[in-house]
Amino acid sequence: MTSAAAAAACIFCRIIKGEIPSFKLFENDKVLAFLDIQPLSRGHALVIPKTHAEKLHQVPDAELAELLPVAKKIAIAVGAENYNILQNNGRIAHQEVDHVHVHMIPKPNAAEGLGVQWPAKETDMVSLKTLSEIIKSKM
Amino acid sequence: MTSAAAAAACIFCRIIKGEIPSFKLFENDKVLAFLDIQPLSRGHALVIPKTHAEKLHQVPDAELAELLPVAKKIAIAVGAENYNILQNNGRIAHQEVDHVHVHMIPKPNAAEGLGVQWPAKETDMVSLKTLSEIIKSKM
Repeated sequence: MTSAAAAAACIFCRIIKGEIPSFKLFENDKVLAFLDIQPLSRGHALVIPKTHAEKLHQVPDAELAELLPVAKKIAIAVGAENYNILQNNGRIAHQEVDHVHVHMIPKPNAAEGLGVQWPAKETDMVSLKTLSEIIKSKM
Repeated sequence: MTSAAAAAACIFCRIIKGEIPSFKLFENDKVLAFLDIQPLSRGHALVIPKTHAEKLHQVPDAELAELLPVAKKIAIAVGAENYNILQNNGRIAHQEVDHVHVHMIPKPNAAEGLGVQWPAKETDMVSLKTLSEIIKSKM
């Protein structure tokens, strides 16, 4: 599928175009924010770049730069004290719609909102130092 | 505790000042990125604003704007195809260090990386419409 065809079929691109209704919270020339219609908690919102891109590393920096300030505006308006910002890339990483979206998910109590599992790995300082040098060499 | 006292005691502020070593990946005047020393997967990195703030909604927009473009650079350098971007606010939302940090967590397979639980709530279109109007009125 070409990127134009992917965008034409994309539910979030259709929301941006107004072909599918949404409960909009904020919009400017680069990003759109609206309520998630399958919320984990009251005020669960999505902030998306207007350019169609499947994963974060494909989004232009100028659009990426706008996403967290908009998530912040919504967190303040919702009055969320505790919340998670989550953006998933790839089906294995729980991405369900193939258009980059940042979740702002209030966490009002232990039962509602995002649940997180944290399977930390064993590592050591020598391995981390080597890895940091490998990554830096590619940046 | 005053905000100056909070910053003096903050482990991430001490990393920024160079008082505590880290495996740095990127630094500019607004943000710092380094490897998480308790990684969920190879390449698990943190991107932090240099201004001390406990939660996302307290970070100046100019620093927030830099966080995702840096996470993108690292995801590309690590070669992560599938990954989660996560930023937790509040102990109940799994925040462990009280200085805003964005996790870039590669998800190489089902067992490694972030685990997510998604307890969706029941809602309806009328409730969502009303909620969207309440939130917009506060933005």
